[in-house]
Amino acid sequence: MSENCIFCTLREERIIGECDLTITFLDTYPASPGHALIVPKRHVATYFEVTEAEQNAIAKAIQGAKLILDDEFSPDGYNIGVNNGEAAGQSVKHLHVHLIPRYLGDVENPKGGVRWVIANKASYNNKT
Amino acid sequence: MSENCIFCTLREERIIGECDLTITFLDTYPASPGHALIVPKRHVATYFEVTEAEQNAIAKAIQGAKLILDDEFSPDGYNIGVNNGEAAGQSVKHLHVHLIPRYLGDVENPKGGVRWVIANKASYNNKT
Repeated sequence: MSENCIFCTLREERIIGECDLTITFLDTYPASPGHALIVPKRHVATYFEVTEAEQNAIAKAIQGAKLILDDEFSPDGYNIGVNNGEAAGQSVKHLHVHLIPRYLGDVENPKGGVRWVIANKASYNNKT
Repeated sequence: MSENCIFCTLREERIIGECDLTITFLDTYPASPGHALIVPKRHVATYFEVTEAEQNAIAKAIQGAKLILDDEFSPDGYNIGVNNGEAAGQSVKHLHVHLIPRYLGDVENPKGGVRWVIANKASYNNKT
């Protein structure tokens, strides 16, 4: 635990899911209604520093969060995403997996999805 | 397997990693040098349809792919991302996890990362 880390000191009322190794909560600055974050309880910066047990717990937590958000928000799709490192857009240095509900019409052309991290490429090469 | 699916019929030379349940290969339309995709061998559309064993194999394959790309491309960070459903920008209906190497200066302001799937929100609310 890092005392200065906002994800190590989450308020109880923000939490929508929890297991031995992870916490799921709603993003304070949601990109869309229901935007949730899954974090390991252990303070590590990136996905490449988690143990196998944490990896597996995160995967299970993503599935659990999706069911909660389906019930509450009924989205049309989901992006899952992780920013690892400042070059990848990471601000808070405690690993967090974004689960972003998507709604038809929320952007003009959703094609490309997570390719939009590099916008000039996504707009040309949005094949998969 | 689906005969009409490009990820069920990958050419051997594209593959850079493989296990019993997954295949890793380089994207044909890379967003950045080294852009890789991890897919389950079983033809399923989204991350929410994989088995627990497949989830865990995908997580391990992401870690393995990162080490290969580190060696070859030495990026400064990585985005991990999945588009689930057309509303989330998915085109090929066979689950694929994007592992996108990031390089300092590859975009003007990387902050927000995967939040850019909904661009008008990422530009204002890029706190995490």
